[in-house]
Amino acid sequence: MDTSHHYTQAVTRAVEELSDCRSYQGLFHQYKDGEPLPSGRSLCKIVDLARAILFPGYFGNPTIHSQTMKYHIGVNVEELFALLIEQIQAGLCFGVENGNKECGDTPCRKTATELAAKFISRLPEMRRILATDVEAAYYGDPAATCFGEIICCYPVIRAITNYRIAHELYMLNVPLIPRIITEMAHSETGIDIHPGAQIGHHFTIDHGTGVVIGATCIIGNHVKLYQGVTLGAKSFPLDEQGNPIKGIPRHPILEDDVIVYSNATILGRITIGKGATIGGNIWVTESVPPGTRIVQRKNKDTL
Amino acid sequence: MDTSHHYTQAVTRAVEELSDCRSYQGLFHQYKDGEPLPSGRSLCKIVDLARAILFPGYFGNPTIHSQTMKYHIGVNVEELFALLIEQIQAGLCFGVENGNKECGDTPCRKTATELAAKFISRLPEMRRILATDVEAAYYGDPAATCFGEIICCYPVIRAITNYRIAHELYMLNVPLIPRIITEMAHSETGIDIHPGAQIGHHFTIDHGTGVVIGATCIIGNHVKLYQGVTLGAKSFPLDEQGNPIKGIPRHPILEDDVIVYSNATILGRITIGKGATIGGNIWVTESVPPGTRIVQRKNKDTL
Amino acid sequence: MDTSHHYTQAVTRAVEELSDCRSYQGLFHQYKDGEPLPSGRSLCKIVDLARAILFPGYFGNPTIHSQTMKYHIGVNVEELFALLIEQIQAGLCFGVENGNKECGDTPCRKTATELAAKFISRLPEMRRILATDVEAAYYGDPAATCFGEIICCYPVIRAITNYRIAHELYMLNVPLIPRIITEMAHSETGIDIHPGAQIGHHFTIDHGTGVVIGATCIIGNHVKLYQGVTLGAKSFPLDEQGNPIKGIPRHPILEDDVIVYSNATILGRITIGKGATIGGNIWVTESVPPGTRIVQRKNKDTL
Amino acid sequence: MDTSHHYTQAVTRAVEELSDCRSYQGLFHQYKDGEPLPSGRSLCKIVDLARAILFPGYFGNPTIHSQTMKYHIGVNVEELFALLIEQIQAGLCFGVENGNKECGDTPCRKTATELAAKFISRLPEMRRILATDVEAAYYGDPAATCFGEIICCYPVIRAITNYRIAHELYMLNVPLIPRIITEMAHSETGIDIHPGAQIGHHFTIDHGTGVVIGATCIIGNHVKLYQGVTLGAKSFPLDEQGNPIKGIPRHPILEDDVIVYSNATILGRITIGKGATIGGNIWVTESVPPGTRIVQRKNKDTL
Amino acid sequence: MDTSHHYTQAVTRAVEELSDCRSYQGLFHQYKDGEPLPSGRSLCKIVDLARAILFPGYFGNPTIHSQTMKYHIGVNVEELFALLIEQIQAGLCFGVENGNKECGDTPCRKTATELAAKFISRLPEMRRILATDVEAAYYGDPAATCFGEIICCYPVIRAITNYRIAHELYMLNVPLIPRIITEMAHSETGIDIHPGAQIGHHFTIDHGTGVVIGATCIIGNHVKLYQGVTLGAKSFPLDEQGNPIKGIPRHPILEDDVIVYSNATILGRITIGKGATIGGNIWVTESVPPGTRIVQRKNKDTL
Amino acid sequence: MDTSHHYTQAVTRAVEELSDCRSYQGLFHQYKDGEPLPSGRSLCKIVDLARAILFPGYFGNPTIHSQTMKYHIGVNVEELFALLIEQIQAGLCFGVENGNKECGDTPCRKTATELAAKFISRLPEMRRILATDVEAAYYGDPAATCFGEIICCYPVIRAITNYRIAHELYMLNVPLIPRIITEMAHSETGIDIHPGAQIGHHFTIDHGTGVVIGATCIIGNHVKLYQGVTLGAKSFPLDEQGNPIKGIPRHPILEDDVIVYSNATILGRITIGKGATIGGNIWVTESVPPGTRIVQRKNKDTL
Repeated sequence: MDTSHHYTQAVTRAVEELSDCRSYQGLFHQYKDGEPLPSGRSLCKIVDLARAILFPGYFGNPTIHSQTMKYHIGVNVEELFALLIEQIQAGLCFGVENGNKECGDTPCRKTATELAAKFISRLPEMRRILATDVEAAYYGDPAATCFGEIICCYPVIRAITNYRIAHELYMLNVPLIPRIITEMAHSETGIDIHPGAQIGHHFTIDHGTGVVIGATCIIGNHVKLYQGVTLGAKSFPLDEQGNPIKGIPRHPILEDDVIVYSNATILGRITIGKGATIGGNIWVTESVPPGTRIVQRKNKDTL
Repeated sequence: MDTSHHYTQAVTRAVEELSDCRSYQGLFHQYKDGEPLPSGRSLCKIVDLARAILFPGYFGNPTIHSQTMKYHIGVNVEELFALLIEQIQAGLCFGVENGNKECGDTPCRKTATELAAKFISRLPEMRRILATDVEAAYYGDPAATCFGEIICCYPVIRAITNYRIAHELYMLNVPLIPRIITEMAHSETGIDIHPGAQIGHHFTIDHGTGVVIGATCIIGNHVKLYQGVTLGAKSFPLDEQGNPIKGIPRHPILEDDVIVYSNATILGRITIGKGATIGGNIWVTESVPPGTRIVQRKNKDTL
Repeated sequence: MDTSHHYTQAVTRAVEELSDCRSYQGLFHQYKDGEPLPSGRSLCKIVDLARAILFPGYFGNPTIHSQTMKYHIGVNVEELFALLIEQIQAGLCFGVENGNKECGDTPCRKTATELAAKFISRLPEMRRILATDVEAAYYGDPAATCFGEIICCYPVIRAITNYRIAHELYMLNVPLIPRIITEMAHSETGIDIHPGAQIGHHFTIDHGTGVVIGATCIIGNHVKLYQGVTLGAKSFPLDEQGNPIKGIPRHPILEDDVIVYSNATILGRITIGKGATIGGNIWVTESVPPGTRIVQRKNKDTL
Repeated sequence: MDTSHHYTQAVTRAVEELSDCRSYQGLFHQYKDGEPLPSGRSLCKIVDLARAILFPGYFGNPTIHSQTMKYHIGVNVEELFALLIEQIQAGLCFGVENGNKECGDTPCRKTATELAAKFISRLPEMRRILATDVEAAYYGDPAATCFGEIICCYPVIRAITNYRIAHELYMLNVPLIPRIITEMAHSETGIDIHPGAQIGHHFTIDHGTGVVIGATCIIGNHVKLYQGVTLGAKSFPLDEQGNPIKGIPRHPILEDDVIVYSNATILGRITIGKGATIGGNIWVTESVPPGTRIVQRKNKDTL
Repeated sequence: MDTSHHYTQAVTRAVEELSDCRSYQGLFHQYKDGEPLPSGRSLCKIVDLARAILFPGYFGNPTIHSQTMKYHIGVNVEELFALLIEQIQAGLCFGVENGNKECGDTPCRKTATELAAKFISRLPEMRRILATDVEAAYYGDPAATCFGEIICCYPVIRAITNYRIAHELYMLNVPLIPRIITEMAHSETGIDIHPGAQIGHHFTIDHGTGVVIGATCIIGNHVKLYQGVTLGAKSFPLDEQGNPIKGIPRHPILEDDVIVYSNATILGRITIGKGATIGGNIWVTESVPPGTRIVQRKNKDTL
Repeated sequence: MDTSHHYTQAVTRAVEELSDCRSYQGLFHQYKDGEPLPSGRSLCKIVDLARAILFPGYFGNPTIHSQTMKYHIGVNVEELFALLIEQIQAGLCFGVENGNKECGDTPCRKTATELAAKFISRLPEMRRILATDVEAAYYGDPAATCFGEIICCYPVIRAITNYRIAHELYMLNVPLIPRIITEMAHSETGIDIHPGAQIGHHFTIDHGTGVVIGATCIIGNHVKLYQGVTLGAKSFPLDEQGNPIKGIPRHPILEDDVIVYSNATILGRITIGKGATIGGNIWVTESVPPGTRIVQRKNKDTL
């Protein structure tokens, strides 16, 4: 039948073209043969497990008995550990620039295991600091009725949890994976925090959609942001080939107790001083002294 | 082997610390032993069922016969009812502040059943008002080709459906669950509507990402918002302990036929009068008379 | 028992009301009896398959061998083809306004098969242009370490991939489905690109949440947007019945090499000339000459 | 690496050989290009649905309310109908010997729809006769406590239900599918009933493992078998090419009220008369008059 | 269209007939409105959990660390306990003959919880006796290479594990569920052991297909059966209404160290004395003294 | 509450006892810490893949196009290969008796990879011989209508396919896994073939439930068995400790063209000569000359 013939042609031709190695090994094909890339599905599971460990009852199994909680945390930590080893190994392989180093070998797995163990040992500290973020969200919102509501409902908790997980992995020099984890929260909450940013305790973001926190930001304690706030780079120097130079501090520093209202944009390596308040919908590209309050000029006309 | 030894140590130590009840019963651990918290997974299912009931064919089973539709609606309503009873009970238990009242008992389940039945009986009315929202979206967008396209594709329909579901539960004084349901839509659409807000018929939001509608907002009929609009609180009074006072009206009132363009921010208990138009990217903290049209002053320089 | 009686009443009454055909055939019920609507679940699978075909290893199966990649691409293309036929057919049925034409018949399926085959044959070209988008994202972000990181993590890749898939289907006049596909990316990334927009190569969006690109936009090559940018319509003419007139060009044209910074709003059928730069948080409703740089006036007061 | 090289070789060579059409089109490859075979997974679902319809509460959803049962039966019948159409069509295509008749065409689907509708209309009668089988099992086993226990636990119910479903399809001349359905029960229960057998009401089998009932058996009412009973063919005439001649009556006739004890073997087109009893572990190849009781001779020696 | 009309008729008529309460409340409809029946799916999960607890590593999660095994056993025991409470409650409700006793009430759930707790406390003892069954299988089969192979592969382990689980529940007077559990093993292995049978330690069955062990059997220690062995009832007395009298001992007693070879049939309340051996394919209806060896007489003719 | 207290006690006590290493390291606990056992779930997947490769269309994806079949076979073979490596490695680890050899190391994985590659390269030959088994089943059953029906429905095909897969692995000295694979077919079909048996081409079994074929059987070509046939060991010599001596030939040899009817039992290292026929329900413990026909003596009395 004609249809069937067309079928064959359309499918097999497209497959030939799409499988041609020349169409791959050119521009963006950089993986190595037979070594797995980090898996979105596994990293999703990793985030689910970490959330269930850090906030038992609120994520994962909804019923908790204090006498048996240990079993559940034990099983979750063990599974998290196993998945992390595998994904960190995939990340390390991905990160190796030099094709000579082979990644299926023992040293690479050993490194992955050590890094995963370090991460696991940081979980209690992560929970301690996340507890301060819950507090900050609660005391900052008159609509909140209890800590539990904050943990269950507020998107900032998901975003900041993913950030704190990703930041630990980032500090262990695990490639790629930290960014995937914060982008998961970006997709889920609209809050985009780069894993390289440094963020103090009692941090919160209200509503959150559209918030961007760049890779070299430094944020103190008790800082609060509203939706749509950008802490970005103004521009970046290019190297001799015209490529952006990587790794230069280029995002703002927010000292303790700063508040930034909705849709404000703060750009460049400037410092917003302790206790300063930045009003909504404004554009800040110069440092702001401590305690200052900056607001939008009246900018509307009634017709 | 060393690796195995490390393994054991990393995992078991972290589990010990993370299971220590002192690390829980302090700050943010507030659930009660052995009583389930509301479950994100079940609430997700509840939303899926409600959408399939309210818009059959567009959500849930994609094939509908008029003669057999009743069977499908019947099964979905029954399953929705059963899940609601269970989740409302979990929400009621969660909401009980006083530890003396036991939540596994019959009265609590009976209350949950009554509330779920009330919710179920409101479904036809919910569909009627949602039909007006579909109309509003259709007549407001020249790119829309038919009502069906609106229901299938437009994020506002998902956000407003979740809001109307959540608002019904909110009016029945069900704790926690309404907020989880609107936050699901927030995650899915970037539109953050507090379940406590009051919103009239023929309501629509175009694009929607970044919209925030606060808990005490009152929105009339035939109102239209664009992406990035905030209807927020300006600031809130603190009580003697310095905590925000809960429950005070603090968000705007939008009368009938108001239009608010993208990224406008309207803050505080002010009133935007009937038929007023608020231009994009502006910041409004004072009431606006009916019929007024406010736009941004020219605010750019060409260099 | 009373409870059981209440149960029966609440459920069966609601089912009666919700199944009453009068409550359907009025306003927004437009599907045809027994013919499936496009299915969100199938379209999700279609997007997953297309991503796995276009970026093997990064989406879908994370392990790839160059010698066996062809098998995987072959299976994925074949499954994609089969699902597309079914969904395009559902879309065509949905799109038929005239109730006389029956959609279960051979012509309709034949058309769907032809359109699906055309789409399949466009996949290699889609990959070529997506490769330029990956390049653009890489060279535009100093935080990016390699092309692979861009593909794995950057939301713009998901949004632009869905857009390029949807645009091909839109150009084939497939109803409804293109819009569902771009709305999936909107939900996932906060980037809302209408499938009708025309977008050149080397296109990128940084962060992306809140970006809106309207249906009649024309965007050149090497264009870069930041988060929160709106390329929208200013207003639209109504016909004699007061309904918006469909299909009129009403969104901006951005020529090659334009950059638009975060939260800028560009409205109406204006032209942003080649190489122009639009600063953040501003509102543009008039054409901008090539090479111009527009920035926000200082608009803040320090109190 | 060598390993990777071996890998490539082993896999790609085997794939080449296994995909070579000559290795297929020879002996046992008889399917037609692009037309689906009946699917084990779908037939499994068909059996689950039919059981849930025939014995609601015992199979499928375990909770039933009399007021809402209709919705569940409705949804199940509709899904069963849709699956049956698709599988009967696959079976009809499979059954067509002549390659000229194309099976994707309307007549074939129309036939499948008509046959499925006939099957659906037989469901109430199937339930009536299955009720007699439940009765027979109950009154025949002193260990049974109620009808419900019979339906839940007794393998004969699953075997006879599948048989009665398959027999209806067999009587409608649906190829292949009836046999797959009875083999599912064979796998589940060890009871192998050919769908062509004719079996009266009040039929039961105790324990059942190893029972074989051949294609041309005729079994009256109120017949009871025990485990391991074979109702088989003695030998079968060959045609001129030495192949067995198909369709000749070659299995026993059991009249009403016959009992056959465990592991008895009854072979050939003989008649076991009304009310006869056949003892265990014996071998019967000649007809037995009504009312006769045949037992094994003492056949053991004590050493 | 005609097809669609037929469709409607076939489905809706069948649904009407099948939902008519008269077709239910007659013969075999005995469940109570709104109370769940025991669920095959849950009981399956219960068996999987019990097997994973009793034989960790061999069933359930295949990787076990001695240091973390406790977490896994803890989670499995807790889940088993919760599922058992629910299923035992369903079983108790099912078992209540008198419609006056309401089953959704607290006493019934309390009873179910107590019975489940008793069952849980018996698990260590169950493992001890199952270990003897593993030993018996190992020492009885020259083809077995280690205990692990026995546990992984030998169907007798699955059958006897289900039997020992079911027997505990039977001894706690839980209705219905024990029989469902042994029938699951019957389906899986072809070995049909009634949960009421009493079986000593070091029990094994080789191959097993077709074995039947009746409800009132008493089997000593170190007994071995082969495939196809029936330990059944010869006939059973009827009461005045002609129904079988329930609960009378009617199956054999096998004393310690008895061996029964394949396809032997032992019927009635007879005693096979300590150390006796019963040869294959024979029929035993009278008691056999200790130490006796019974074999089949030569019963074949060579033609 | 008391209940909760009981709960805690029942669960935690049982967990303590069941996790006590003394209860494990005694009798039947033989796995090694942290090394996975072969996984039933993975082996199930392996069998499904192998069946889909050997009989495409009949198992796995039901729709096949000759032009694209290669892609499907390619993906299936690659997945089969990967799963086999992992499971063979688990089997090799399990099989290592000496605790000194560590199994996570490269040599073991390398061996597993080599064995898996050998297995993969045998797949075409396996298909060739299975084709003869399909032929044998077809020509032996007058009820069979075509080869496809045999492959779809006849349990012997599943049993013999699993046997031929398992036998290949057995010949490669893979421990444990071959037996698990044949036991899967035993559970599915009631046919129990030991992977060590040697079976020629054109082999078939009718109905099959209860068939047992022992580890040292040798079966020629064109042999046919009926249900319930045992090819077993008569008795086996014990070593000085009273344990059975492993590995001695102890099961029958069936030469070419032998037929064995239902429920016959053939025991010990005897030879059934070429072309012999063994009648049903008889017991054979001595060799039978070629061409002989043995039948049961009349062994019944009519009362």
